[in-house]
Amino acid sequence: MNIQNGPRKAEAIFAATLELLAEHGYERLAIEAVAARSGVNKTTLYRWWPSKDALLAAALRDSGLFAVDIPDTGSLRGDLLAVATQIHRLLTSEHTAPVVTATLTAGPRRPELGDVSRSFFADRMAREKPIFERAAARGELRSGADPVVVMDLLAGAIWFRLLLRGGDTGPNFLEEAVDTVLNGAA
Amino acid sequence: MNIQNGPRKAEAIFAATLELLAEHGYERLAIEAVAARSGVNKTTLYRWWPSKDALLAAALRDSGLFAVDIPDTGSLRGDLLAVATQIHRLLTSEHTAPVVTATLTAGPRRPELGDVSRSFFADRMAREKPIFERAAARGELRSGADPVVVMDLLAGAIWFRLLLRGGDTGPNFLEEAVDTVLNGAA
Repeated sequence: MNIQNGPRKAEAIFAATLELLAEHGYERLAIEAVAARSGVNKTTLYRWWPSKDALLAAALRDSGLFAVDIPDTGSLRGDLLAVATQIHRLLTSEHTAPVVTATLTAGPRRPELGDVSRSFFADRMAREKPIFERAAARGELRSGADPVVVMDLLAGAIWFRLLLRGGDTGPNFLEEAVDTVLNGAA
Repeated sequence: MNIQNGPRKAEAIFAATLELLAEHGYERLAIEAVAARSGVNKTTLYRWWPSKDALLAAALRDSGLFAVDIPDTGSLRGDLLAVATQIHRLLTSEHTAPVVTATLTAGPRRPELGDVSRSFFADRMAREKPIFERAAARGELRSGADPVVVMDLLAGAIWFRLLLRGGDTGPNFLEEAVDTVLNGAA
């Protein structure tokens, strides 16, 4: 979390926001309840985040709950496997999975939530960029390969298997997904 | 649609079900309203589908709205590009996108909907299997490559880009995704 861009109790505020989201869903998430649970004055919250969506975007992006460790294992395969394992953990852990579900199911007609999602994944991609820069420098990435497409394939496969297709998502699945993205199915 | 496994007006019933789902959301989807719109007696509906979820599963799986043409272009690349284009169309067309969104956002605590989703994608995978059998016979598929993982990567990338990351999903994106799945990013 960037403490230069928020009030001192930002982590407590973000935690309260995401807890209340998971407990009550997006519709009933209220700034008043966040204020009560985090012990921060409502006026302070509104000074930093003018709307519920602004607060939710900041919480999802900057809370420690969704922090990723950007790995540096020495190989692109090792780094992608570490990232895939973290994505899998965020989508299945009892602390984070309910927040993901509540965000996803918030409602079909909420363009603001589309902005939250885009902002979250743009930030995530910016942090993952060094993985691909190091891989390119080591000659592990085909010239012209688009890191965003690689992450769409890898993250998308994990989301798709877990939330839509169902079925096994163990270590073998993650390795097979990484190896196929790197070496191809052909 | 398999007319041997449903009443004569099945397609009208499925259409009414999916229209009402898109209009009112899962919570307020009612068998009574499906009966009224399709002109089929409520008792008939209950005879075929004992619950709302059973009807919804059948509608999503067997309605012409979500039918896929299994391509046979002569190459795995051509077939996967055709499938990817169809997935993209289903997620963006004005007739199908609202149904997808309403199903996805139906609510976090609905294990029955997980069953609907698993049943839908199992059926879809069974239909796509010949694509991979033909590819293997032509020597276009690495021995040991798992068609389910290939489809998780490809479909997952399209879902992820469209619904979570946002941004461009034009023909170039679909080609890049297919080519990376086939030939790898390494």
